[in-house]
Amino acid sequence: MTTTPSATVDALSFPALPGALDTPRVVVDLARVERNIARLQGEMDRRGIAVRPHTKTHKSVSVARLQLEAGARGITVGTLGEAEVFAAAGLTDMFVAYPVWADAAKGARIRALHEAVASFSVGVDSVAGAERLGVAVAGGRRPLRILVEIDPGLHRTGVGSPDAAAEVALAAKTAGLEVAGIFSHGGHGYRPGGTADAGADEVRTLTAAAAALRSEGFDTPTISAGSTPTMLSAAAGAVTEMRAGTYAYGDRQQWVLGAIPAEGCAVAVAATVVSVADGRLVVDAGAKMLTKDRADWLTGFGAFPAYPDLVIDRLNDYHGVVTIPPGASAPVIGEVVAIVPNHICPVIDLVDSVVVVAADGSVADWPVDARGRSG
Amino acid sequence: MTTTPSATVDALSFPALPGALDTPRVVVDLARVERNIARLQGEMDRRGIAVRPHTKTHKSVSVARLQLEAGARGITVGTLGEAEVFAAAGLTDMFVAYPVWADAAKGARIRALHEAVASFSVGVDSVAGAERLGVAVAGGRRPLRILVEIDPGLHRTGVGSPDAAAEVALAAKTAGLEVAGIFSHGGHGYRPGGTADAGADEVRTLTAAAAALRSEGFDTPTISAGSTPTMLSAAAGAVTEMRAGTYAYGDRQQWVLGAIPAEGCAVAVAATVVSVADGRLVVDAGAKMLTKDRADWLTGFGAFPAYPDLVIDRLNDYHGVVTIPPGASAPVIGEVVAIVPNHICPVIDLVDSVVVVAADGSVADWPVDARGRSG
Repeated sequence: MTTTPSATVDALSFPALPGALDTPRVVVDLARVERNIARLQGEMDRRGIAVRPHTKTHKSVSVARLQLEAGARGITVGTLGEAEVFAAAGLTDMFVAYPVWADAAKGARIRALHEAVASFSVGVDSVAGAERLGVAVAGGRRPLRILVEIDPGLHRTGVGSPDAAAEVALAAKTAGLEVAGIFSHGGHGYRPGGTADAGADEVRTLTAAAAALRSEGFDTPTISAGSTPTMLSAAAGAVTEMRAGTYAYGDRQQWVLGAIPAEGCAVAVAATVVSVADGRLVVDAGAKMLTKDRADWLTGFGAFPAYPDLVIDRLNDYHGVVTIPPGASAPVIGEVVAIVPNHICPVIDLVDSVVVVAADGSVADWPVDARGRSG
Repeated sequence: MTTTPSATVDALSFPALPGALDTPRVVVDLARVERNIARLQGEMDRRGIAVRPHTKTHKSVSVARLQLEAGARGITVGTLGEAEVFAAAGLTDMFVAYPVWADAAKGARIRALHEAVASFSVGVDSVAGAERLGVAVAGGRRPLRILVEIDPGLHRTGVGSPDAAAEVALAAKTAGLEVAGIFSHGGHGYRPGGTADAGADEVRTLTAAAAALRSEGFDTPTISAGSTPTMLSAAAGAVTEMRAGTYAYGDRQQWVLGAIPAEGCAVAVAATVVSVADGRLVVDAGAKMLTKDRADWLTGFGAFPAYPDLVIDRLNDYHGVVTIPPGASAPVIGEVVAIVPNHICPVIDLVDSVVVVAADGSVADWPVDARGRSG
């Protein structure tokens, strides 16, 4: 099944690109980023729910600071490498939303982070994982805080039942860890029409797990949910914290899902048309820039706000191939075009820096501080 | 259509991983790389065809030097950024196999490369592109050499007819460029059973274009073809040069295509099993390590040589999800496993360095020198 945005969805837009870009480059519109951040923060403030954005989307200390200044409680990271980058930058409150396996190398890194970061916590989804973490931080000056991961239906990581959640919490306590709460990720909401149900799954599953932990004497002050598709539907009931990430930058997938408005797409890849043929053109953004990330309900690998009839049909490493439908408007050779990628997170991870355009039109280069920190 | 390797294909293998890896890490077996390089060089030497390997696969100065020491004439690159890295390392013979659009920024970079590199040439597939290149290098101490790109049926870049090739060559000559030859890329051979025909397409199309150029007075000393699937079938007839790239490292796709032997897979991603559930496991190599590159004739996103019944079914940024078929052998939580990626080129581009294991068992860290140089 493939999906084309319905007529009720606003057309994708992107601000004018700065001139003289040496393509391909990732371009970030700062006003849109700030608006995306303020929109979620305002809504969560109204609901009394803390925001802990996932920084794997932008991997940028500067953008994380914008989120904290807007009112975020702390940040979420997906790897110890990301945590180390943000810790080195002075951020003091972070949660590794991943069941890190604390072998010798990662155990030492967790211990160092736990000692350096004022508020540091890690996800766990198994008894063995909890025991490993306990060994890694044994003898530290305070217990390491963990959150037990619950599977809300994504069938990835996370325990599958409230009883299993309680079992992991008890093992963590025995291992000398502090059980600070529970968390879920409603990634099974990444399909058209699926977001509301996935958010409800998160709330329901977390509520049941919290009850199981309470019956074993655990407080679970943090009940953390979320993904960008479920950021509104999962921010309800017993949930105390929201961990959306992609919302800050937006992408084609979130736009099609209705998770962000069309003017919420804050990042595009600037590319140059390098070749044209009868009914076809090629841009200099390939799989090493746009990535081959494509949900099976989406057609193509990127959209052109200025040319709504075109998508990237095929990607090779440095070639993005577009088939031009008969009669469609298309750019000419040498033209620099903005392309909104399907999924922004892996795209950002490919580049060392992004071109940031501020509201006053000024242009700056911001590093992708945690690029490549995938472990 | 999905393809499983037939029983006649040797099972995928990978040497033992070094101990104490902080996963995920890319691991390179040097003996296999050297054998892959020697195998192609030996065959092309027998045929009297020059080897100009595409370095976008490894992006490594050290591996490029192994290829040159084995007898390669020079290297191929896909971007000016790659050319700049290899030029800075002292390599003196390189071809940019891409129709670079020489705007102000890229024009200045081409001019600098042309002046710094003893033998430097660039692809062209349009009159406008040739004119741009002529402007960029006007007044230089010697003419820039170009190769006209021919489309052998991939329908990506490249002119579509011998007449068009002659037209571009004439425009290049008028623009003050030296027409050094022609080239093609038989990427349409990336499907089971398609490689021999695609290679023949390259030979046929290049032969016709060379004739058209000769009738206009051009010599075309370089007739360059190739991809890893077509590296043998396109190395024939009038072809003088072979530009395969992936052959040096190998990957699951090339193995399924029969383009490399099973023991030709020289690179794997080492990952740790971080979560197990009934019928499922998750490794810490996700889309930001394995990439979502997957041909539609291939199932899954990576293979486990030690567990032949398993593939990576789903990828999120940091999660690789495996469904365990009933009764299949599977790794346990905490186990470090080798995963052979579908397509190695974009995987290498995600990491700053690789772990290289030499034949004597010694382990070194080699930088991915041209990582991220996508333009």
